Amino acid sequence: MPADSHNPAARDTVKANEAETPSSKLVRFPAEEPLELDSGIRLGPWQIAYETYGTLNADRSNAILICHALTGDQYVASTNPVTGKPGWWHLMVGPGRPIDTDHYFVICANVLGGCLGTTGPATLNAETGAPYGLDLPVVTIRDMVRAQARLVDHLGVDTLFAVIGGSMGGMQVLQWAASYPERVFAAIPIAAAARHTSQNIAFHEVGRQAIMADPNWRGGSYIVGGVRPTKGLAIARMAAHVTYMSDESLHQKFGRNLQDRENLTFGFDADFQIESYLRHQGMTFVDRFDANSYLYVTRAMDYFDLAQEFGGTLPNAFANTKTRFCVMSFTSDWLFPTSESRSVVKALNAAAANVSFVEIESDRGHDSFLLDVPEMFETIQGFMIGAAHARGIPAPGEAR
Amino acid sequence: MPADSHNPAARDTVKANEAETPSSKLVRFPAEEPLELDSGIRLGPWQIAYETYGTLNADRSNAILICHALTGDQYVASTNPVTGKPGWWHLMVGPGRPIDTDHYFVICANVLGGCLGTTGPATLNAETGAPYGLDLPVVTIRDMVRAQARLVDHLGVDTLFAVIGGSMGGMQVLQWAASYPERVFAAIPIAAAARHTSQNIAFHEVGRQAIMADPNWRGGSYIVGGVRPTKGLAIARMAAHVTYMSDESLHQKFGRNLQDRENLTFGFDADFQIESYLRHQGMTFVDRFDANSYLYVTRAMDYFDLAQEFGGTLPNAFANTKTRFCVMSFTSDWLFPTSESRSVVKALNAAAANVSFVEIESDRGHDSFLLDVPEMFETIQGFMIGAAHARGIPAPGEAR
Repeated sequence: MPADSHNPAARDTVKANEAETPSSKLVRFPAEEPLELDSGIRLGPWQIAYETYGTLNADRSNAILICHALTGDQYVASTNPVTGKPGWWHLMVGPGRPIDTDHYFVICANVLGGCLGTTGPATLNAETGAPYGLDLPVVTIRDMVRAQARLVDHLGVDTLFAVIGGSMGGMQVLQWAASYPERVFAAIPIAAAARHTSQNIAFHEVGRQAIMADPNWRGGSYIVGGVRPTKGLAIARMAAHVTYMSDESLHQKFGRNLQDRENLTFGFDADFQIESYLRHQGMTFVDRFDANSYLYVTRAMDYFDLAQEFGGTLPNAFANTKTRFCVMSFTSDWLFPTSESRSVVKALNAAAANVSFVEIESDRGHDSFLLDVPEMFETIQGFMIGAAHARGIPAPGEAR
Repeated sequence: MPADSHNPAARDTVKANEAETPSSKLVRFPAEEPLELDSGIRLGPWQIAYETYGTLNADRSNAILICHALTGDQYVASTNPVTGKPGWWHLMVGPGRPIDTDHYFVICANVLGGCLGTTGPATLNAETGAPYGLDLPVVTIRDMVRAQARLVDHLGVDTLFAVIGGSMGGMQVLQWAASYPERVFAAIPIAAAARHTSQNIAFHEVGRQAIMADPNWRGGSYIVGGVRPTKGLAIARMAAHVTYMSDESLHQKFGRNLQDRENLTFGFDADFQIESYLRHQGMTFVDRFDANSYLYVTRAMDYFDLAQEFGGTLPNAFANTKTRFCVMSFTSDWLFPTSESRSVVKALNAAAANVSFVEIESDRGHDSFLLDVPEMFETIQGFMIGAAHARGIPAPGEAR
């Protein structure tokens, strides 16, 4: 286990930061314990905000790390204090759920570059006393995972029983398995990919340009100016949101239905339900997310290319791995299509890894991983039981 | 043929309008000859700008109307005076091309609501002396077709040998066949649909919101203010452009290649070629297109639902039609997928229409209809020969 996991100085910094994250646990790492980033920059001081659920067992073998997606957060199974809504994966994580918090110790941290307590562009830069803005170094998926590893060290966990996540969370899962193979017993990347495709980068770039075109963005220094680029951020969210749903789910949910009217108005108001829905998605998003964080986290996804990190050959990322993998995709997900998951599976096969692969029938697009998709829950539940037996720990419901 | 096709007053108004459209032919209709719009408004005076290629034969049986797509124009086969580029369909239309201008008389008009000479939001409102802006009534695909019918009348053509177009152009083709069945001998809707889907409306709404969020948009009155919402329009174009290409074509063309650099820069410049490409697409688009026109023309597409116009039953749109149809789609087109063309074909079958359907293998997405896709050219060439024989006119290459 890396040295600083038992570093008393680091442990001492655990405290709630009332001002920034009303309800999250927080670890502050002083400047002397910086995070070494892919950019070559040493980031410090820095901090990571997280939530935990359940209890770590005596031999510390029941810890599960959950990695959140682009606009997710650490409130995986508890009320989000900003929105007041249930945790984003409360269907998956909780007492009696597929990831059973009566049985497992679940950790979920806000990603590096995020905006819910972990160091991000809105964090005060110790050198200037002002928010970082664009002075924060650009971070990568590997940097996010490095930060999580420091948190896991801090919590006294050597080997994670499982690392699980969807979309960008699945990228982190793959990065965990590649960077720290001996620390990941089981890995579940869902609706993910080992690289961001050209089309994915394209959609992100549209969103970033929308933010940066907003005059309130002010080169990223909007907080100091007391303004926020909410229009640009809302448009970025609208553009992204379309890509999270399938054509079929949009058709079923909205079709060409009109919004609170009998006839077309021959104008530019939201005649159609889909327009009204998208505008609502954009408007509510800006209340819970920081525009600069959106730039940083999308950039981290764009930069993700796990093969490149291993000489251009993806199987090398998993050479000699003992981790057991459960890879999942959804039939109607066109943003992270099954073909990308299949590439991961092929690479794992080429590395002689223990891997199962399930393409789940769902017409709800990329967002399926967040929704009530019974086959996903059953698949994970089954995989977790098998993994628990292999690990020599009781599965939920079994005598301990 | 409607009365005003031989109306001397209308014919007298044909003259080049040097100020607005340096090289286009133009018909001006006075206030007494308004266009009756779906909104119930009578638009007048109004004008339509167009180009023709080839020569109308003696019995006026060789006229082909080409309908352009969202951001297309009347310069289908001749140099666009704004961009200096070849006509947008010069591969399809010209001497010896599948639509052979040595043989056919080709008409292509700028759509109503457009910005290259036909009445649109940038046109001066005769009542105020200022550009219409949002005071122009919202127009529909049917209104565009009504305007074209007036032009065709004016040109002295009763029955069009063929009406052909891709994307929004294909919507107009379907509308022509439904509104004026006796005036359309053959119809070729390519990569089109009989309705705009929820997903399509969603992408358009993102673009419109980007334009309207630009402070230079000024409620649509930017021309009077001497400014233009170029940033918003560029973002709208970027978002749309991604939807015109397939994941596969983006992968082949750009992949994750870097733009003029060896390594990632850990910043927000255009590291990737796809980013640089999209930014370029956005920047060049604003030089040739009007932001308000973008609002109007996207809205016309959103409003398009041919079945609804016929009691909710699409086959009714083609009841008793004698028009022969050639419907085409492309395998990798996810914006106007084959399923939409198939719905059109099913409706035509239910109406006992003469219809052929070809789904063309192409990995280049929706834009395929604009590109060098030999199977498309061969399909159209073959269909046109058959249609010429059926019509009793010689096909290209045959003795007249």
